[in-house]
Amino acid sequence: MPFSFRLIATDGAARRGEIVTPHGRVQTPAFMPVGTQGSVKGLMPDDVRATGAEIVLGNTYHLMLRPGAERIAALGGLHAFMHWPLPILTDSGGFQVMSLSALRRLEEHGVTFRSHLDGAMVELTPERAVEIQSLLGADISMQLDECLGLPTARDEIERAMQLSLRWGERSKRAFESRARDGYALFGIVQGGDDQRLRQDSARALVDIGFDGYAIGGLAVGEPQAVMLKIVAETAPVLPIDSPRYLMGVGTPDDLLQAVARGIDMFDCVLPTRNGRHGMAFTRFGAINLANARHANDPRPLDEQSTHPAARSYSRAYLHHLTKANEMLGAVLLSTINLAYYQALMAGSRTAIADGRFADFIATTKAGWARGDIATL
Amino acid sequence: MPFSFRLIATDGAARRGEIVTPHGRVQTPAFMPVGTQGSVKGLMPDDVRATGAEIVLGNTYHLMLRPGAERIAALGGLHAFMHWPLPILTDSGGFQVMSLSALRRLEEHGVTFRSHLDGAMVELTPERAVEIQSLLGADISMQLDECLGLPTARDEIERAMQLSLRWGERSKRAFESRARDGYALFGIVQGGDDQRLRQDSARALVDIGFDGYAIGGLAVGEPQAVMLKIVAETAPVLPIDSPRYLMGVGTPDDLLQAVARGIDMFDCVLPTRNGRHGMAFTRFGAINLANARHANDPRPLDEQSTHPAARSYSRAYLHHLTKANEMLGAVLLSTINLAYYQALMAGSRTAIADGRFADFIATTKAGWARGDIATL
Repeated sequence: MPFSFRLIATDGAARRGEIVTPHGRVQTPAFMPVGTQGSVKGLMPDDVRATGAEIVLGNTYHLMLRPGAERIAALGGLHAFMHWPLPILTDSGGFQVMSLSALRRLEEHGVTFRSHLDGAMVELTPERAVEIQSLLGADISMQLDECLGLPTARDEIERAMQLSLRWGERSKRAFESRARDGYALFGIVQGGDDQRLRQDSARALVDIGFDGYAIGGLAVGEPQAVMLKIVAETAPVLPIDSPRYLMGVGTPDDLLQAVARGIDMFDCVLPTRNGRHGMAFTRFGAINLANARHANDPRPLDEQSTHPAARSYSRAYLHHLTKANEMLGAVLLSTINLAYYQALMAGSRTAIADGRFADFIATTKAGWARGDIATL
Repeated sequence: MPFSFRLIATDGAARRGEIVTPHGRVQTPAFMPVGTQGSVKGLMPDDVRATGAEIVLGNTYHLMLRPGAERIAALGGLHAFMHWPLPILTDSGGFQVMSLSALRRLEEHGVTFRSHLDGAMVELTPERAVEIQSLLGADISMQLDECLGLPTARDEIERAMQLSLRWGERSKRAFESRARDGYALFGIVQGGDDQRLRQDSARALVDIGFDGYAIGGLAVGEPQAVMLKIVAETAPVLPIDSPRYLMGVGTPDDLLQAVARGIDMFDCVLPTRNGRHGMAFTRFGAINLANARHANDPRPLDEQSTHPAARSYSRAYLHHLTKANEMLGAVLLSTINLAYYQALMAGSRTAIADGRFADFIATTKAGWARGDIATL
C-alpha cells in the first residue's frame, strides 16, 4: 500500500487528516512520542500505545552510533527491535549532530563529527542519512538538513537553507534509488525567522517533490510568536494534500496554535522529559508534583483524564515518588503526560471535524488559565 | 477473616502451604518483591502482579521517614497509597536503622537514629514499630529486632538476641492492644551463627506466641553453608502450623535450599536491583546482558519463560538498553527477574505437592550448571 495522506476536514487553516503507512494509519493532527534510543524512556510499547500514540519517533543520530543501523537492520529493523508494530518516523540525525557532537566539520558533501560515545569520527551525508533510515525501516524518513539556532545572521541562515535544499535533492535521489513501496521521505523547510527565506525554501522543496513537508529550525530559541508567525507564513506555501510536520514542538499551547495554522504532526521530548522531573501536563495546566501542597492530597491528578494513571494514583503518591526520586514516578508521569498530549490531539481532531476548533482552543486555554484545583 | 496458615503438603522438610490475610491468599513457598519506598522500583502494580507476585514487602524505615506513617494512614493506608490491593508485609525498620543511619543509639527502650534524609533524630521502639506498621495497614507486621552482621562475637550475638526477645514480647503486647482482626505479627529469631542461641531464641519466641516466625540476621556476610545450617537447625524448633520467613534471602539457589529446609516465605532486592544493573536470572543461570556476546543476538532470553517479556524482547535489545543505560532496560529486566523468582516458587509448590521437590531442585540446578545457550 502506497504512502498517502487524506485530508478529511478543515476548520480555518486547521486540518483533520489521515496518513497511511506500511505499518498502519495515523490520524492527524498527531503527536509522536520520542523514542530516542529505541525506547520511549521507561515505557513498555503497550503502555505507549495505551496513551493513544499511533506513531513514534526514533533518533537516527543516537541509533546510528549505538547500536548501529546495520545491526538493527540485521535484527529485523527498528519496529521488531523495539517491539513497536505501528508506524515510526525517524529524523535525519542532522539536528543532533549540531547539538550533541562537540567536534564537527560541515562541508557540501555532508557533516563529519566526533561521536559523543566513543570519540570515533563519523560521516553523515544526505545519502547515508537516507540509507540509515532505510536500514532502520522507518515508515517516514527525513532528509538531512542543517539546522541553526536563533537568532542567527540572515546570510548564514540563507546559506544553511540553500545547503539544506541541495541536501534535500540528494536525499530524494538516494531515497528513490531504494524505491521501497509505501515508505515516505519528507523534505524540511529551513530559513530561520525570515519569511522570504522560509517561503523560498518551501517552494523549492515542493518543486523537488516530497511525500510530506516538515518545518525545521524552529523552537530553537525564538519566542513563540516568532515561531507561530513563521508557521503561518510557511504552511500556505505547502501542498494541501501532503502532511505538514513541525519538528521538535512543543508545549500543549504550541501544539494547538500550530494546528490552528495548518500543522498535522508534532514530536517533542517535553511530555516525557518533564514527566521525569515531576511535572504533569493536565487540563488544569502544568502541575509541579514536587510542590508540598500535594503531599496530603488523596485526589488524582485529573479524575476526568482519558488515562487510568491520571485518574487512579493520588497526587500524594505522585508527590512522594517524585520527592523520593523513584523510577515509577518518572514512568507514571511520562505516561500521564503522553496521554494528555494524545487527548489534546484527539480533541483537536474531533473539534476540527465538527468545525469548532476555535472553541476547543478557547475552552482548553480557559482550563489552563483557571489553573489547578484548589489545595484541600 | 482471621490470619491463618494451612499446610497443604510436605516433601521432606519442604512445605507447600497457603496463608490467608485480610487482603487475600498467598501460596507458599512465596517470594515477596521489595517495594522499599512504596513502589517496586519502576514497575506499575499490575506489572508486579503479572509476574505472579501475591504479596509485596514495604520498608518501615523508609516509609516512616518519607512520606511518614501517619500521612499514609490518612491517605487510606499503604495498599491504597501504592495501588497494591493484595497482601503487604512490612519489616520493622530495625535492620535498616542499623544499615542506613549513620548515627544511632541503641538502648533497652529502643533505638534513636539520625534520618539519612534530613538529619532529624528519630526514635524507634518496639511499640512505635508496631504502631507504624498498623498505620501502614500491613497484613503482616514484624517485631522490632536488633540485627547484627556476621561474624560477630558470641556474647554480642547473645546480648542482641536477648534484647530482640524482650522487644518481641513488647511488640506482641503493643500489637494485641490494637487487636485488628486478621492482621498478623511475626516474631524474629536471632542468634547469629550459633545453633544454641538460635534454638533458644526460637523456643522463647514460640512461648511468646506469634502468627508466624521469621529467621533474621542471616545473609549478612556469612557463607551460604552457614546460613543453610542455621536454617536447618532452626526450622524444626518452629511450629509446623505457622509460616516461616527467611528475611532478605536471596539467590535462586538460596531460595531452593531454604525451601528444602522448611522455609515458606522470602524477600530480597536481588531480582530488582540486579535487573537494574543488566543482570537477568533465568533457567540458564544468571546472564549479564551488558556482555557483548548478546549485541547481535535476536533470540529472547528464554523462549520457555512464563513471562512474555522474557519471550519477546531480543537479547540484542536488552543488551542495547543496558549499554545505553535506558530506564526501560531496568524495567524489563526487573520484570523478567521477578517473573523468574515467581516461576521458581510456583515450580517448587507444584513439585512439593507432587513429592518430587528433590528432583525439581536437581533439574533446576542442572539447568543453571549447563549455563546459557551458546552464542549464535
